[in-house]
Amino acid sequence: MTALTMQDALTRLAEYWREQGCLTVQPMNTEVGAGTLNPATFLRVLGPEPWKVAYVEPSVRPDDARYGENPNRLQTHTQFQVILKPEPGNAQELYLGSLVALGIDVAAHDIRFVEDNWAQPAVGAWGLGWEVWLDGLEITQFTYFQQVGGLNLDPVPVEITYGIERILMAQQNVTHFKDIAYAPGVSYGEVFGQGEYEMSRFYLDDADVDTARALLGHFADEAQRMIDAGLPVPAHTLILKCSQAFNILDSRGAVSTSDRAAEFARMRRMSGDVAKLWVQRRAELDHPLGVAPTAPLAVAPAATGHAIPTTTSSAAPGPQTLLFEIGVEEMPPAEARAAREWLAQTVTDKLAGTRLAHGAVYALATPRRLVVTVEGVAAVEEDATRTVKGPKVSAAYKPDGTVTPAAAGFARSQGVAVEDLVRVEISGVEHLAVVKDEPGRTAPVVLADLLGEVVTGLRGSRNMRWLDPSLSFTRPVRWLLALWGTEVVPVVVSTLAADRYTRVHRTSAEPTLAITSADSYSGQLAATGIVLNPDARWELVTKGALALAASVGGTVDLAAEAGLLDQICYLIEQPTPLLGSFAPSYLELPEEILTAVMRKHQRYLPVRAADGTLLPYFVVVANGAIDPDLVRAGNEGVLRARYEDAAFFHRADLATPIPDMAAQLSRLTFTDKLGSMADRAARIRALAGVLADTVGLAGDDRATLDRAGELLLFDLGSQMVTEMTSLAGVMAREYATAAGESPAVARALFEAELPRQAGDILPTSVPGALLSLAARLDMLTGLAATVGLPTGSSDPYALRRAVLGAISVHRSQPALGGLSFAESLAAAARLQPVDVTVLDALGEFVTRRFEQQLLDEGYPVDRVRAVLPHADRPHRAELVLGQLTAVAGEDAFLRLAAALQRARRIVPAGTATAYDPALLTEPAEQLLHDTLGKVHADLTPGVDLAGLVAATTAAGLPDAVDRFFDDILVMAEDPALRAARTGIVAAVAALGDGHLDWVELRVAR
Amino acid sequence: MTALTMQDALTRLAEYWREQGCLTVQPMNTEVGAGTLNPATFLRVLGPEPWKVAYVEPSVRPDDARYGENPNRLQTHTQFQVILKPEPGNAQELYLGSLVALGIDVAAHDIRFVEDNWAQPAVGAWGLGWEVWLDGLEITQFTYFQQVGGLNLDPVPVEITYGIERILMAQQNVTHFKDIAYAPGVSYGEVFGQGEYEMSRFYLDDADVDTARALLGHFADEAQRMIDAGLPVPAHTLILKCSQAFNILDSRGAVSTSDRAAEFARMRRMSGDVAKLWVQRRAELDHPLGVAPTAPLAVAPAATGHAIPTTTSSAAPGPQTLLFEIGVEEMPPAEARAAREWLAQTVTDKLAGTRLAHGAVYALATPRRLVVTVEGVAAVEEDATRTVKGPKVSAAYKPDGTVTPAAAGFARSQGVAVEDLVRVEISGVEHLAVVKDEPGRTAPVVLADLLGEVVTGLRGSRNMRWLDPSLSFTRPVRWLLALWGTEVVPVVVSTLAADRYTRVHRTSAEPTLAITSADSYSGQLAATGIVLNPDARWELVTKGALALAASVGGTVDLAAEAGLLDQICYLIEQPTPLLGSFAPSYLELPEEILTAVMRKHQRYLPVRAADGTLLPYFVVVANGAIDPDLVRAGNEGVLRARYEDAAFFHRADLATPIPDMAAQLSRLTFTDKLGSMADRAARIRALAGVLADTVGLAGDDRATLDRAGELLLFDLGSQMVTEMTSLAGVMAREYATAAGESPAVARALFEAELPRQAGDILPTSVPGALLSLAARLDMLTGLAATVGLPTGSSDPYALRRAVLGAISVHRSQPALGGLSFAESLAAAARLQPVDVTVLDALGEFVTRRFEQQLLDEGYPVDRVRAVLPHADRPHRAELVLGQLTAVAGEDAFLRLAAALQRARRIVPAGTATAYDPALLTEPAEQLLHDTLGKVHADLTPGVDLAGLVAATTAAGLPDAVDRFFDDILVMAEDPALRAARTGIVAAVAALGDGHLDWVELRVAR
Repeated sequence: MTALTMQDALTRLAEYWREQGCLTVQPMNTEVGAGTLNPATFLRVLGPEPWKVAYVEPSVRPDDARYGENPNRLQTHTQFQVILKPEPGNAQELYLGSLVALGIDVAAHDIRFVEDNWAQPAVGAWGLGWEVWLDGLEITQFTYFQQVGGLNLDPVPVEITYGIERILMAQQNVTHFKDIAYAPGVSYGEVFGQGEYEMSRFYLDDADVDTARALLGHFADEAQRMIDAGLPVPAHTLILKCSQAFNILDSRGAVSTSDRAAEFARMRRMSGDVAKLWVQRRAELDHPLGVAPTAPLAVAPAATGHAIPTTTSSAAPGPQTLLFEIGVEEMPPAEARAAREWLAQTVTDKLAGTRLAHGAVYALATPRRLVVTVEGVAAVEEDATRTVKGPKVSAAYKPDGTVTPAAAGFARSQGVAVEDLVRVEISGVEHLAVVKDEPGRTAPVVLADLLGEVVTGLRGSRNMRWLDPSLSFTRPVRWLLALWGTEVVPVVVSTLAADRYTRVHRTSAEPTLAITSADSYSGQLAATGIVLNPDARWELVTKGALALAASVGGTVDLAAEAGLLDQICYLIEQPTPLLGSFAPSYLELPEEILTAVMRKHQRYLPVRAADGTLLPYFVVVANGAIDPDLVRAGNEGVLRARYEDAAFFHRADLATPIPDMAAQLSRLTFTDKLGSMADRAARIRALAGVLADTVGLAGDDRATLDRAGELLLFDLGSQMVTEMTSLAGVMAREYATAAGESPAVARALFEAELPRQAGDILPTSVPGALLSLAARLDMLTGLAATVGLPTGSSDPYALRRAVLGAISVHRSQPALGGLSFAESLAAAARLQPVDVTVLDALGEFVTRRFEQQLLDEGYPVDRVRAVLPHADRPHRAELVLGQLTAVAGEDAFLRLAAALQRARRIVPAGTATAYDPALLTEPAEQLLHDTLGKVHADLTPGVDLAGLVAATTAAGLPDAVDRFFDDILVMAEDPALRAARTGIVAAVAALGDGHLDWVELRVAR
Repeated sequence: MTALTMQDALTRLAEYWREQGCLTVQPMNTEVGAGTLNPATFLRVLGPEPWKVAYVEPSVRPDDARYGENPNRLQTHTQFQVILKPEPGNAQELYLGSLVALGIDVAAHDIRFVEDNWAQPAVGAWGLGWEVWLDGLEITQFTYFQQVGGLNLDPVPVEITYGIERILMAQQNVTHFKDIAYAPGVSYGEVFGQGEYEMSRFYLDDADVDTARALLGHFADEAQRMIDAGLPVPAHTLILKCSQAFNILDSRGAVSTSDRAAEFARMRRMSGDVAKLWVQRRAELDHPLGVAPTAPLAVAPAATGHAIPTTTSSAAPGPQTLLFEIGVEEMPPAEARAAREWLAQTVTDKLAGTRLAHGAVYALATPRRLVVTVEGVAAVEEDATRTVKGPKVSAAYKPDGTVTPAAAGFARSQGVAVEDLVRVEISGVEHLAVVKDEPGRTAPVVLADLLGEVVTGLRGSRNMRWLDPSLSFTRPVRWLLALWGTEVVPVVVSTLAADRYTRVHRTSAEPTLAITSADSYSGQLAATGIVLNPDARWELVTKGALALAASVGGTVDLAAEAGLLDQICYLIEQPTPLLGSFAPSYLELPEEILTAVMRKHQRYLPVRAADGTLLPYFVVVANGAIDPDLVRAGNEGVLRARYEDAAFFHRADLATPIPDMAAQLSRLTFTDKLGSMADRAARIRALAGVLADTVGLAGDDRATLDRAGELLLFDLGSQMVTEMTSLAGVMAREYATAAGESPAVARALFEAELPRQAGDILPTSVPGALLSLAARLDMLTGLAATVGLPTGSSDPYALRRAVLGAISVHRSQPALGGLSFAESLAAAARLQPVDVTVLDALGEFVTRRFEQQLLDEGYPVDRVRAVLPHADRPHRAELVLGQLTAVAGEDAFLRLAAALQRARRIVPAGTATAYDPALLTEPAEQLLHDTLGKVHADLTPGVDLAGLVAATTAAGLPDAVDRFFDDILVMAEDPALRAARTGIVAAVAALGDGHLDWVELRVAR
């Protein structure tokens, strides 16, 4: 069939959702960034009233303005927005129906719900859900709203936001939005092209900044007045106008970090007030649209035809397999993995709390199901008795032998005769008691309770609510399947009742499947193509990927892609690896760009030649029995669009002289108090110079440092880095090289950004290392002075990562060994535009991060602490730690350490090491004095730890120390003698100075 | 069938227009007052590109905010907007198709295109077209745009704007917009009610005026910057934002007259710049949507099968009737009437310019056709000869008798031999000449040209262009029917070619009708129900109306409704009078309200009882064979809604204390320089006091004046008058009475507004007259000082009307006779907040208007001029004019006048009237002296004109004067004698002083 025109597509969508009971309303008549901000969403999702609506929303994003030149980016794009409140329980299925209405063959295409947690802090809103992918193309945002305007939503609405241009470009198979057929014979470009260009001019170049700022102020004041007047509707509209004014400021590059934070805070506060007012007003109006009914309670299993057996059936069967499947809407991979582990453990633990005999417990998971299987679950619990303690025997009988009221009362309370009470000894005291028989319950009864608790106890790392009022999990739980053998276990949890039905691919002819028995489950599921076991999926994915890569002479680096593979296996239920290709011309783009797009954006596996070079292929793993050619073509199209985007930026950047990109830096704010990125670059440059002087950098390296310093950060002004910030440094290297800079300068520019995250590569050149270190020190001192050091889990500027980076660079680069962190920080502080009064705290903070880093690397805590005196020079500390590690197991070292610790414990640090040998007349004293003399004679200045051990051991110091302490009372009564004795002990202790903090060492001999 | 829900209606309309090739686009994402301002209209109608579009436009009119309480008024109403460019030639028919798509039975309903000339000066836009009425309800605006942004539009687009809420209220039969079914089970009020209330609060009460003013400034500046940057799209958006800010200021009552004018001027200028930029930009882009093809030329009549007979057919028929019908889209009544007269005259004149014998010429008209019939048009013109003058005979021959080159050349140029030249005498001189035979052309040939010129020459008082590039008329000419007997007259005008087809009711099964012959035309048309003759329609309408009225015991005042009846007869082709009724409870509303609504808004004839009181009925005249019950019910619904509206305002006003209404006056601007309406009321009050003192008003009348002065203008603050300004005064009387004011005060308040237009009733009470006069004098002095006196045809503040009103009041009220206009104006001037330096000019202006008024009343110019010396006291002037009129025909008067004029001509005005009788010794002198003595003895002071005539006649003054002038030379040589004679003549002349300017009188005996 021919693809729909855009106007027909919008009409069809509206029609489809109208048929599902949605109102059709009009777009907002003031600029909005997204359909979410239309009051038909923002206000209506609040409160208890039901609301179903669908509308088109031209969404304005000044930042996305590209003069209409970028094929995929528009300052105004068209959203189609659907709100279903309360979420109906089958929104995903309804959504797929809408795709069918658009003429999309949902069975042939690879349609996926990929984790996406939506949040718009500026309006106090968040929700959990997905991006919907159509053959790798994100076409829809699908979110269960949890909060809006800071208020919890009850009932929970679902929001479905279609990106219309994307869908139509894919359906119409065009590569530029202007080529979309808007109507018969009329293209999108013809209708909107000029507006796209002119509004881009307005947003990017011509809008007056002072005017936008003034408008922002006026609208904010007016919004506040309307809030004060108790009018949420105009207040909301005015907040939208604030937002647009702010967005214009932003696209004109006139928003500093602090401006942004302040503005978001104000909008969040006002949005919250609006939300509260709306809720209040609707309540006052007595909820004109009614109150959404709470979710119906689960159909009682009895009603479904399954009797609940509460006692052992007359002919009790043998042990049976238990199968429990929790059907969930697509879980994020990490959540599914974690829930699987939790499930195995929890079921095991809970079974242990019963008397039900059972075999092994296994848990498996796919994106849509958590499954636990327990082998050989007995039909009934073993019978048991229970003893209920009564009064002490001594208090149970009167002197006349009759029972006391206490005893009589106990019997009565237990419903037995006094004669039936028995005597038991508890903690050595005889009591009256009742012994009760507890017959075992049947497996279904036990399991129904147990599994119910399992469902109620499910938690993800981030949880949501949905239709079901009493559950909370990473995504909605939609069905329960519980079989003990062939028998349904009557699990009832809130609105859910377990049955024998599972759900398979949504696009199957029979999306629901009745499971015959617990044992037949995995076979039945496998017959639909679903692979239950993640490990099996991994096998299928990797084997398939390798075979596909091999078919074009390539391979997939399984080790490098381990994390991605892991994700992929939890994104699909039925792996269908496909080989896709892209135009080899894109290989001219930097590899980092290509792989970043493949991995991060598309979850494609890159294909490489034997020598590791990238080949123009990728492996995408589709889900289910899709049409391979269609899905391959779709994914190739998506990748082409992304690469075309990247190539567009790349070309544009290459055509831009470096000074022009660098000129942008003065328009990019680092922070409001610390100036622009240009200011930051200047500081880093200066600091690197100071550090270079300190380490005596000269010659070519110095020239490289100076030149790289001049260019520093310029790529932040490139379109590519603006687009993909993770490419900072990479693009600097690329563009600098293209501009004819030396390889050394290009490398230094790249290395200045290293390390980008924990575990990243480190600079290998000295200029690169110096720039990297300077960049981090600049950030640390500036932010510590203006924002403060991170506390608790809050570290918005990632200062911890900056410290760790700085330490790592220092440690890795011998040439920097001489640099003192404290002095470097002081130098950085002198360059800041603000007073830095927190240098001590900062030094301590660095030391603590260093300590933590070493511990994280697996060094024993005592050794780490022992080398901390060197923390100011991490490279040196690392050296000493290496020496310590080398000798730490040696007996000689341990004896020396013990001796030094013994000495340190006697004399406080700082005790004078001078003594009058003449006063030391005891043999042990004389021995120690002589030994010390030998040691001092042997030791060369700057000796390392091994040398110290060797010299002291050779001289017999440990023995001499031991003998001294055995024979001599240091604290003699004669003060002179005591001083001499203290002095010689101090001299011993001083031998360890400059090496370690000896007392921290744990010396177990 | 069940009526559509609102969302379904919008869907159907979009669908219908999509089927007609329109794009569907989205509403504007900034507030607009109408769909016209959406760039999809405002920008796209400019330039040569074709454009067809349809969209919903929620239109924001802050002024219409009513808190959602008024059943028919919303601050945001929903328009559905269609643009067809170029206008397709059948937009009316397409439009009717859209009503069918909405489920409206267009044949059963009375659907009318009622003149409405649309203009939006603030954006330099205007067009001609109609309101479309559905059973009296205005549901659509239908306009052929002529200019937008000050630019002429070519091609001409048609705009169709549906008022969705109105259509749906009618279709769903609900009486409050909130009750419209928006979607199944969801009412409009439920969806939009709260917003309607809150936005009303914002617009009417809570929006901050300073903020709105600041926003207006910012947006205007930014719009100008975008214009300077050459970016029409953002500039247009910013102008829309200006407009919204301005509308907020306006709804908050913060716009003065000058603010408004200045703002409109700015917006007009900027809109013009935007329009020019857009046109330029589209040209630079080479018109991406192409260039609309110009209209196809008319199909040549040959192609339609009618041969063009250029010569008399062999068997020439006898004379035949000529029928010429010009089919026009609904003409405004006045235009149709005028065109009919023009047509008869023009055809008569043009026929006179031919040699075609013919009988009587008649012209008729309906709203859709202009028809001329000429009886007995001969088949051919009479043959004729024509003489072409050559050289004089004297210059034609050489002395040798051969012809001169001049004569030879003449013969050659005429294509004849020299021998064929004849001699003719022209102005007494013999010339050579050629005499040519001119055979008569056939009637069709003559008529084709002649009628073509008629069509080309058609003009209305206001004309438009449409698809046809070379015609211009009040509305588009769509077809031509021209028959000479049975033969089509091949008239071709631009794109139109005459044929034998007429068009009847658009909703007929056969809307096109082939006419057999000129003579059968009227019969064939009559058979379809169409009444061609306006007089016949008048008969049908009046008879029908009277009969219907009689059926409920009432009548229609044909004389009072003459103007309305005249209109009605040109609004319909087939009169179908229907009797409608309204709830008698509405009769409690002031009659003025009821009749104003009926006549002005609805063109209904009020039905009255014999005593003139209004009955709860009306007559509506529908067009065509509609379903009477349906149409009656529809019209009743419309009237009910309008009355409900009025009742709503009335109730609201009655519940508002007068001081609260009066408090609004300080928020209503009179003019920017002259302050608020409260200021104006204060000035009028003060001035009326001054005038009252002058005429010595006292007692009850004075108390009435003072109290009425306190309340003056308060009803301008009422909702009713805000809504229908023509009710100012009427409502003051009503509300004052209701508030317990005395009848005299209520009357004075009413009369203060009189006269409201030329011919209106005048105040009958002195307090009323004083207030009325003071109000007009205040206006005159204030505006003359600040705006200036009207010049030419421009009189924006209607100062001429104010002067005429003031004069009329003065004339009508004897108690004011003593008031001097000059002094009164001076008193008014002293109360103005500005210096009034134009009092002399103003006095002269008043005199000229008074003169004109008297002339308009039919007084002879000489008499009017003769009484102008009394112009400062019009009442006195009128009195004198009355006296003059009474005596003007009398011989005695004429003789007196002649005598006085004779005297005046001899002596200049101001000549001393003293003389020495002793010097006057001649009998004629003595007679005159004696006669003068008798006259003076008879005359009482303050004698009127008749008394003067009587006294002078009795004394024989005319005779004495005659004799004096016959016998005596006034200019004697002796200076003393001359002085005495001059003196006695001056004394005669002075007899007329204080009565008339005698020399102005035309005295023909």
